[in-house]
Formats: sequence, C-alpha cells, structure tokens
Amino acid sequence: MKEESMVENILEEVLRRVQPGEGERREVLDFVERVTVGLNRRLSEAGIEGEAQIHGSVAKGTWLSGDRDLDIFIVLKPTYTRSIFPRVLEVVKEFVGRGWVEAYAEHPYIQAEMEGFHVDFVPCFEIRASERPRSATDRTPLHTRFIKERLKEGMKREVLLLKQFMHGIGCYGAEVKVGGFSGYLCELLILHFGSFLKTLEAASRWRKGTLLDPMGHYRGRERECRKLFREPLIVVDPVDERRNVASAVTEPKLWLFTAASREFLKEPHLEFFFPPATEPYSEEELGEAMRGRGADILFLLLKVGERYVPDVLWGQLYRAERALRGLLEEHDFKVYRTAVWSDEGSNHVILFEVERGRAKLHMGPPVEMRDMSERFLRKHLTSGRTLTGPWIEGRRWWVVVERVYKDARELLEERLREEGGKAVGVPKGIAERLQDFSALMNEEVIDIYRRFPGFRVFLTDFLRGRPKWLRLG
Amino acid sequence: MKEESMVENILEEVLRRVQPGEGERREVLDFVERVTVGLNRRLSEAGIEGEAQIHGSVAKGTWLSGDRDLDIFIVLKPTYTRSIFPRVLEVVKEFVGRGWVEAYAEHPYIQAEMEGFHVDFVPCFEIRASERPRSATDRTPLHTRFIKERLKEGMKREVLLLKQFMHGIGCYGAEVKVGGFSGYLCELLILHFGSFLKTLEAASRWRKGTLLDPMGHYRGRERECRKLFREPLIVVDPVDERRNVASAVTEPKLWLFTAASREFLKEPHLEFFFPPATEPYSEEELGEAMRGRGADILFLLLKVGERYVPDVLWGQLYRAERALRGLLEEHDFKVYRTAVWSDEGSNHVILFEVERGRAKLHMGPPVEMRDMSERFLRKHLTSGRTLTGPWIEGRRWWVVVERVYKDARELLEERLREEGGKAVGVPKGIAERLQDFSALMNEEVIDIYRRFPGFRVFLTDFLRGRPKWLRLG
Repeated sequence: MKEESMVENILEEVLRRVQPGEGERREVLDFVERVTVGLNRRLSEAGIEGEAQIHGSVAKGTWLSGDRDLDIFIVLKPTYTRSIFPRVLEVVKEFVGRGWVEAYAEHPYIQAEMEGFHVDFVPCFEIRASERPRSATDRTPLHTRFIKERLKEGMKREVLLLKQFMHGIGCYGAEVKVGGFSGYLCELLILHFGSFLKTLEAASRWRKGTLLDPMGHYRGRERECRKLFREPLIVVDPVDERRNVASAVTEPKLWLFTAASREFLKEPHLEFFFPPATEPYSEEELGEAMRGRGADILFLLLKVGERYVPDVLWGQLYRAERALRGLLEEHDFKVYRTAVWSDEGSNHVILFEVERGRAKLHMGPPVEMRDMSERFLRKHLTSGRTLTGPWIEGRRWWVVVERVYKDARELLEERLREEGGKAVGVPKGIAERLQDFSALMNEEVIDIYRRFPGFRVFLTDFLRGRPKWLRLG
Repeated sequence: MKEESMVENILEEVLRRVQPGEGERREVLDFVERVTVGLNRRLSEAGIEGEAQIHGSVAKGTWLSGDRDLDIFIVLKPTYTRSIFPRVLEVVKEFVGRGWVEAYAEHPYIQAEMEGFHVDFVPCFEIRASERPRSATDRTPLHTRFIKERLKEGMKREVLLLKQFMHGIGCYGAEVKVGGFSGYLCELLILHFGSFLKTLEAASRWRKGTLLDPMGHYRGRERECRKLFREPLIVVDPVDERRNVASAVTEPKLWLFTAASREFLKEPHLEFFFPPATEPYSEEELGEAMRGRGADILFLLLKVGERYVPDVLWGQLYRAERALRGLLEEHDFKVYRTAVWSDEGSNHVILFEVERGRAKLHMGPPVEMRDMSERFLRKHLTSGRTLTGPWIEGRRWWVVVERVYKDARELLEERLREEGGKAVGVPKGIAERLQDFSALMNEEVIDIYRRFPGFRVFLTDFLRGRPKWLRLG
C-alpha cells in the first residue's frame, strides 16, 4: 500500500511537470486553429481539393508540456497524383511567408518556424482504413482517428507518463538517431495494456520475438506475422496489417526499455523520467577516466562536405560505425563499445573502445588433424606476425601472433585514405564527401572536447557507460 | 629415388655418430662383465640367492654411443620378501666401496659412479611372464628377454635412430621431467612397425586414442583396453597386459613426436637428431625479446629446503605449475604458456606467460533472461571492479571489469604467502618446505639469468617458443 502510494506520488509529480497547463493548451490549440483555418482558406482559394488538419500528439491531446513540434497534414482528395505536391507546397510557402525550409523524407514537406512552434506541413492523400496507402504519410490521419476514437480522456495521462519515461531513458522517438518508440507506438501500448504501469509490467517480461497485434490481424497466424516482420519488436498497426509500428525500435532500445521497466517497478524514482543533467568531466577528470579504464578509445573525426537531413545523416553514420567496427574485429581487435556523435552539421565523431595489447593467443588445430596442422604451421612459420611458437600444448598447436595493425588507429586511417573507406563499407554519402578525417587516441581528443559542448556531455556519458537510472548498490 | 637416398644419407650420418664403436662396445661390455661377476661373487659369499644381471639398453645392445648409464639388477629368488633388500643393498655398497648414494623410487636402489659410468643397482624378484610382478622393477628382466629374443641384429640400428630422434626432439625418457618415450617403448615400436621410418610414418598418422597391442592381449576387446588405460598413448606391454608401456608419455610429448615425424618425412634433416645448441640471448637481446612479445612473463622463484629425487621433484613442480596456472586463469588472466626450470637442487622457477592488460570485457545475459540479468546487474553495480557499464548492446548486458589483481604477480605472491600456496594446490613437499620465494616480472629476472647458465639456455628456448626442428618457410 505504501509502495503503491510512493509510485503514485512519483507519477503525480511527473504529470505535474509534463501535463500541459490550461494556458499552454489554449495557446497551442489557438495557434493550430489559426494555422489550419488560414491554410484551408488559401488552399481553397488556390482551387486545391484538400484539407489542412492537425495530426500527431497535439491532435490526440497527448503532447508533453513544452513540446513545440506540430504536424499539419494537407490531406488531398485521392483523385490527385503526386504531381499536385509542388502546387500544394507553394501554397504552404506563401502562407508561412518566411522562415521555412523544404525537406524531403518519403516525399517533400515544409518545415517552418512560426510563433515559437516548429511546424511540419506534410501533403498526403486521403485513404480509407482498408485501402493501401500510397506512402507512409497517408496513414497518419488513420492513426489519429484510431487513437482519438479509443483513447479516453483519463488515459491520456498514461500516455504522457509512458512518453516521458521513454524520453528519460533515451528510448523516445522513431527517428534513426534514436531508434526508439514513436508517440503513436506509446499510445498503442497504453491502449493495449491499459495503463503506464501495466505497460511496464508487460515490458519487463518481454522475450525475444515479442508480438503485439491489438486488432488480431494475424490471429492464429503469428508465425506468418513473425516471418513478415523481422524487427526485434512487432506491433501490428491496427489500421494497416502490413505495417509494424515498432519497426524503428532497435534491439538495444527494446531491451533498454525492458530493463528500465524492471528497475522502475522494483525501485521507482523520478530520475527515470528526468535524468539529472550530465556534468561534463573537467579536463583533469577526463584524463583520469581515460587512463583508468584499461581500454583505448579511438576517436574517428569525420568532416563531411554535405548536409543531410538527420535521418539520412544518422543512417549513414551508423552504417559507417558498423562497417568500421567490423573492420577492426576482422583484424583481431576486441571492440568493447562504439558510439557516434554528430553536431548534425559537418562534424561527426565515431568512437571505438578497443582492448589494449598487441599480442593475441591463437589456438591451432589438434595435432592429429594432419592437413589443418600443416596449414597452420605453414601459415605461422612464414608469417612475420608470429611472436611466439607455434608450440604444442595438450593436443593442439598454439601460437602468439601480433596484430597486423599494432594500433587500431593506423588501420582506420589507412582504410579511410582509400576513397573514404568505401571499400570497407563506409556509405557513399560519407565516403565520397569526406573533406577531412583524423583518428585520435584517448586524450588526444582534448581539442574536440574543448570545442563542442555537446560532445563534452556525450563523451562523459559514454565514459560512464551506464544508464543513469541504473543506481549503484 | 634421390630423396630416399637423401634420407638414407642422413640416417647413415646419425648412425655414424650414435652407434658405439668397437672400442666403446668392448669397454662397456668389459666393465659390465667385471661388475656382474664381481657382484655375483659377493652375493654368493653373503649367502644371498640372486644374480646380478645387466639390463636396460646395454643388455639389449641398443645403447647410444656415449651413454654411460647402466642398470644392474639383482634378481632375487621369488621366495624372498622385501625384507631381504637391506642385506642386498649392503652387499652392493661394500662392493662399490665409495661414490654411491641410496635412492628410493618404488623401492630402494643404489646409484654409483664407477669408472666413469653411472650405475643403478636395483634389487628385484624373479618372476615368470604369466606372474604378477610384486613391483614394476620385477618386470625389467622379462622386458630384456622379450627384446633380446626378437630384436634382430640388423634392427638395432633402427632402435638407435628412433632413440636419437626422440632425444633430439625432446621426447626421450619416461622420467617425470620429460614425460616421453622410454628406451623399451622405442624398442617395441621398432619391433611393431619394422623400422625407424615405418615408425615415423605410423606416428605421423596417429590420432587421439591410438592403441598398440603387439601381442594382441586385447584383441577384440579394444574398448575394454581403452577404458583400462586412460593415457594419451596406449602400448600394451607384451609381457604384462596390465601395463601400458607408454603410460609416462604426456599428451604434448605424444603430439610433438607425431608432428616431428610428419616434418621429418617431409623435409628430413640432421637437426631433428642433433638440434643445434642454444646460444643464449645476450642481456640486450633478452630485453628486446621480452619487450617485443606483447605478453608479460612472470617468474616465480621458489627456494625449497628439501632435496627430492628428480621424479618426485618434477612431479611436484609440475603439479605446482598446474595449480598456479589454474589460479591465474580463475582470476581472469589469460595464460599463454607455462614452463618449469629447476637446477634439481633447491632453486626452481615456474614461468607464466600472461596476457597484458587489466580490463576485461564480460558478456552478460540476454536482457530477456530476467533473473540472470538481475544477478548480473546487482553483481556489477555493487562491484568496485566495474570499469564501464553495465550497458546493453544487441540483446545483452555487457560490462568491462578490472581484474581483481591488477597484476598476476600480486596474486601469486599473496597466495604463496599463505602456507606456501597449499590451499590453491601447491604440493605439500614444496609448500611446507618453502624457504623463500619471489615473483619477478619480465626483465627483473636478470639476476637469475646471470646466475644460472642452464636457465639462460632454458629461457632463450622458451622465449623462442618453437621446436628447433620446425624450420621457417
């Protein structure tokens, strides 16, 4: 009873902070009203058959206080083709006036800064639930309707709690950088499990291959469903059985949510929702943290002469990270961890935490395996990398070899010098636009550390290497 | 044809060096004659019913030139009990006069230095082939007879070749220090396979669980035989089916012989038989060899206040080596190689080649495994050894931990301070007689290196870490 009330106290405190107050609500809804009414008038004047509608969390009443991101969809009559988009976007640009950029995801849209709000204007086509959408954006109005029809007023607070929890543990957002849980996914989880705590209870028991199918699209056909969706978590979209709402959720983010759910239920505290801000290490502390860790940290600085929208940029950086990690591992480096930092401009850093030491013990074949032994001996007897042996111990040949590259830095630099690392899997968007790169080891990173405040926080968190909500003891 | 003659040339050269010349033969046989006749007279005068006989390689005509070790057995009538031994040994001592020591293996015997020969006088009881021997020594006369009856004059050269080959590759001798092939075993192999080269051809194809049963004692019962003898190589004694003649052969020595056989057949050269003497590293070279290897070498110096006969001493040293290796591995040190050196007096050195680096990446359980995850988190969150994490990567928890002991030296010293390491498996004979010990790292061994010439050769070979016959390229 006491514990329950403690959890309730915490959740009440969270809601006090994240539930928009009456003033904020009125400000947001008033702004939305003005924009949609105004834009609809312009569309009508331009003879375009379509309606500007608010979607996303504001439409559903599930936005977190302070969230200034609005999604305005221009839902076009289905008789149009995509060739109407330029005309629609022209109307939007004129309506916004100034402070907009045209961006392109699956199709073009307008980002605008208006009265302190960040507004995305997205054209899409009207469809019905049973229809196949022409693009992912066409589904959004269906999502909004689905949630609005089912999410009772009292459950909105549960959505806010879950979103803020996800946010606090770094799992909120389907964007590539995060690879986490979208707002719509949070809403579906609350609808499915009934409350924030029930969602956490379920998540704390999730196993590999967890499958949620709220509308029972695949009832009795779960195997087929798992075959169709290969992602770590499957939540079948109620409005489109061909879509996994959780397709963006990466494996580490899935398990991070599971692990955090368990910890929260065991020992709830506010910091899950509001992690304390990271106080970056002083330069002295940084040096200590580096020297004391028994592993080397290699920083690969990339200067790329092309700006990409974040999802494209992060997709490429993560692919480069995986490719270069693979390269290091192929060359016998034991890579503990990797991470990526970017100013989302032209400065990017890929980190590799690599085991120290240049020698490696290799187990050879059993002596009785004649051909394998022969190959092993020829290889290591003729290799300049052999440090000791081969010798026989127990039944087998053994040898201590030197890594081809005495340090990982040398290897990375060599490969990046060859066409920006294209041959080893660095995506073209980085490899071909690489203006400059350098590989720094441990404390050599100090100049970068001084230059970018965001990097200071990032690196301090990386060096600590533990989720903030994971309390000692 | 050409290759065959090349092998023949090599073997002829080996025989030129190892076949005793006429002068040596006469000197040895003359000495044996005088000793046996003289000792038999003394035994008879003392009223002891028994006969001094030459056994071992001299009796069988298979001794290597320069071998000055003789085995004189006093074969006693089977009606005696072991209580006769002291009287027999008294007769031997009086006969030898001076320059003897009494030693004790399975039972007591006399070692004597006489006219440049090292003679073992061993009392035993006469038995017949079908009888169960009272001790292993009782079998020796049967071995001698078995070989003498079957080994034709022309095959003795094959035995010499095999013995010298074993000697050259470090596999000759059943003593604990070597753990190799006894002279009798070499003779049986030649009888079984017909020649030196045929023995090597067979050995080069040996697999795990090789079983030779020249007399077919276990024909059709091979499984039973393998169950009875657990050693890596089984050669059933023709004169006693309860005995594995190869019981002393350790696994590395077995496979060393197999590997060397293959290499010799592929590329025969004299150095298999006569490896070049090791030129010890200069102190400068030693430093380079240590620094350049990417692993640490830990030298555990033991000063033991008790002299043991070699088999007992080496047995204890090897057991200590295994126990301490296990200790290091339990504490997360990756041990590449170990070795033992001893002056067979009171100075002993156990070497451990250990991976450098104090940090270790630990893979934790999959997050979905709730209880295991819980234990993993509690353990690593409360541990002072956690360097980084725990964090989630892929499906699992990971953590980088510091070894409990930052260096292996600290660990070994701590354990040896507690009753000489008895608790971790150092045999009592060492643990309880430990007068002093110290653990040296890498170049700190220089004083020992200067002090013991034998250690210089040993350490140089260890650092090279490759059989000498294994040619580069």
